Amino acid sequence: MAQHTTLDAILHRLDEGLDAALGRLAELLRIPSVSTDPAHAADVRAAAAWLRDELAGIGFHAEIRDTPGHPMVVARSQPGGARPLLFYGHYDVQPVDPLSLWDHPPFDPQVEETPAGRVIRARGASDDKGQLMTFVEAFRAWREVHGELPSDLILLLEGEEESGSPSLRPFLHENADELRASLALICDTELFGGTRPAIVTQLRGLVGEEVVIRGADRDLHSGLFGGLAANPVMVLAQALAALKDADGRVTLPGFYDGVDELTPELRRDWESLGFDAGAMLGRVGLSDPIGEKGRMPVEMAWNRPTAEINGITGGYTGEGFKTVLPAEARAKVSFRLTGRQDPARIRADFRDHVHRFLPPDCTVEFHEHGGSPASVMDTRDPAFAAARQALGDEWGQEAAFIGSGGSIPIAGDFKTILSMDSMLIGFARDDDRIHSPNEKYDVQSFAKGARSWARILAALR
Amino acid sequence: MAQHTTLDAILHRLDEGLDAALGRLAELLRIPSVSTDPAHAADVRAAAAWLRDELAGIGFHAEIRDTPGHPMVVARSQPGGARPLLFYGHYDVQPVDPLSLWDHPPFDPQVEETPAGRVIRARGASDDKGQLMTFVEAFRAWREVHGELPSDLILLLEGEEESGSPSLRPFLHENADELRASLALICDTELFGGTRPAIVTQLRGLVGEEVVIRGADRDLHSGLFGGLAANPVMVLAQALAALKDADGRVTLPGFYDGVDELTPELRRDWESLGFDAGAMLGRVGLSDPIGEKGRMPVEMAWNRPTAEINGITGGYTGEGFKTVLPAEARAKVSFRLTGRQDPARIRADFRDHVHRFLPPDCTVEFHEHGGSPASVMDTRDPAFAAARQALGDEWGQEAAFIGSGGSIPIAGDFKTILSMDSMLIGFARDDDRIHSPNEKYDVQSFAKGARSWARILAALR
Repeated sequence: MAQHTTLDAILHRLDEGLDAALGRLAELLRIPSVSTDPAHAADVRAAAAWLRDELAGIGFHAEIRDTPGHPMVVARSQPGGARPLLFYGHYDVQPVDPLSLWDHPPFDPQVEETPAGRVIRARGASDDKGQLMTFVEAFRAWREVHGELPSDLILLLEGEEESGSPSLRPFLHENADELRASLALICDTELFGGTRPAIVTQLRGLVGEEVVIRGADRDLHSGLFGGLAANPVMVLAQALAALKDADGRVTLPGFYDGVDELTPELRRDWESLGFDAGAMLGRVGLSDPIGEKGRMPVEMAWNRPTAEINGITGGYTGEGFKTVLPAEARAKVSFRLTGRQDPARIRADFRDHVHRFLPPDCTVEFHEHGGSPASVMDTRDPAFAAARQALGDEWGQEAAFIGSGGSIPIAGDFKTILSMDSMLIGFARDDDRIHSPNEKYDVQSFAKGARSWARILAALR
Repeated sequence: MAQHTTLDAILHRLDEGLDAALGRLAELLRIPSVSTDPAHAADVRAAAAWLRDELAGIGFHAEIRDTPGHPMVVARSQPGGARPLLFYGHYDVQPVDPLSLWDHPPFDPQVEETPAGRVIRARGASDDKGQLMTFVEAFRAWREVHGELPSDLILLLEGEEESGSPSLRPFLHENADELRASLALICDTELFGGTRPAIVTQLRGLVGEEVVIRGADRDLHSGLFGGLAANPVMVLAQALAALKDADGRVTLPGFYDGVDELTPELRRDWESLGFDAGAMLGRVGLSDPIGEKGRMPVEMAWNRPTAEINGITGGYTGEGFKTVLPAEARAKVSFRLTGRQDPARIRADFRDHVHRFLPPDCTVEFHEHGGSPASVMDTRDPAFAAARQALGDEWGQEAAFIGSGGSIPIAGDFKTILSMDSMLIGFARDDDRIHSPNEKYDVQSFAKGARSWARILAALR
């Protein structure tokens, strides 16, 4: 069979098998694999087992590999082929709270008709179970047409991506020989503007920190002690407020060391994208970009570092009022990094910053929640041009080279530990409500995502 | 019987009846009358009913009087007598969280032997059920010896003191003729230094505010939106942090208008008290007074206004980490007022302050949780001298005229609405852990408190 005819057969088979594929995705979505919550540890493992069985069923040699945290799923097709390719996705999902804002239970996936087309709605539908199943379905169709899988595929499916990937680096180190490929293909990103295929060529890094400030050994009466005793919530508020200046810049000393300005070429490319911050913000009830003064929104989102408070709690937060002077205050804080910013240095500088606000009577404790540098890909690898072409054929628009504000530390780890470049291709949309209630994945993303992988496989095999 | 002999008989009867009196207090403490939590509304009413029955049983005409919130208990003895006296206490209690820090269930009162003597331990033991039962027990003993109650007593027992007393002022207005007395006796304060009887002659006022800042209509992914979208937790932290300057002064414009410096006399008196801020802080695991620069600790605690954050919450606060950009942030904030500071003006100035930090994309909502000016008593009323003498006789030390950092808005309301001065006498100790887990009341406070009221009644009747 000619190459073209074979590809057509695979695409045809994917189209015919769409409902069955959606059914398989729904099975996976029913498993509440929330990695950040210890109560769901068994569910995370169940999702790993489901994937192992699924991959074994289509001809992979697939295994669950234990780690000190949640397990990895590793699968291989037969050796041989032009260049080994590693596919990466993650099968763990974000917590679902606030549950009350979901229109139906988050782990009871529903295919719904919407004005914009069919969607499958559940926690993880887009991030990242729906996405990783696009390449699994492409492999399945390939095997049904060819009788065997493409050679030299390695799959690495992680169960800790949403909780900072604590086991990932040790696992890559310990299994470097087994996992090293010519190129990694990571499916955890978005289409650009909802319709244009895109390859992410740079990603922001992340430093996650939890800070706990403690004062008195109990909550105090704010009448008796107010004005005399240290208030940990005020100390925390002052430390966090001082992280940004009036221009929206992060105040840690040397924070911008290693942050690269856009090259003229990239600036031109990004200006031409029509990045519509107003529309992006409008979809979530906002309108005005609020970041650093003097920066384009696309630059703020992809090429500028930032600091965010992800959560804060302290004192009485229930109904009504309680005039306590709280014993303790906690916050979760994250920094998004670009260029060559050093996560370890920024973590240390943040801790120094908090210490400067600490009165003698207070103590502070820090908990590390993940750290990874930004990633910038070498787009001169011909695989980028081949994938760009394949994506353009499927979607009818040239694929864009874009940045991403989100952190996919795996890309940096693949580079650092396995000396392997990554190509980040995904089919999510920016209205997918990932990490929020009522997450969804468009059936079109799922269907054309699988077809895209079939085309890319054909181009790279 | 001679006056002196009669008083001795009442004191003797109080001593003999102590165990029975503790049993009655324990009954009241078993009722979880948490006024701030709507789930406990029926319990608050049950505590009111218990008190009504108790007072009716010792000869009062006692009633439960409904309000839009929790009920009042109002009781009267027979008319006549030298001057009508109104006794005030509150039968509602603070929430018990965190429950895990209680050594036994908070509503299962236990009498315990401690190195410092016997205590009764439960939520409300000190604040304020134990205290209000001191005067109830004094009335009981008086009646048993005299055959009738002292004439012209009015009791007003409130069920909303711990939740900002929303119904109190309308109730005082509506029932002014019935409640107006020559003097109010309020039992909700402490001994000085744990042993010295004290009459509080000035109290800080309170402004309670809840502030809710909202940004996007959902929690956002901090990677995709971080650096672009407004973060309500950061907005809130910046507004709250800016409430105090580096010298510990509140920054609202005109905040210190109406704050009186200590008179030379009061300064001398307070300096002579031996107010030991180090010891007070040491008991709760702290050591350094942290308030306004250049002020004595006793002054910070009683005569200087302040601002405190009582609680804060926003974003992801569970186990692990979630890289959300929160949709909403909330804080409960209170100001303690002194002198002639105007609660309404300070509330308005606080709201203006928060508005100044609000970016265009955020909205803010405020909820009022109580407001009352500071109270300063006219100690030239001879009743103050008489009570000072009676307390000295019972405790073997001259009673001190002191201030209080806590807010007992009722004293201000009695003055404003009923043109009635208040005398604040209580027997709590500063290690009673009021508003905290493992609250207790010393049995000595309870026993000598009741004896003190018997002596004061004898002096004022």
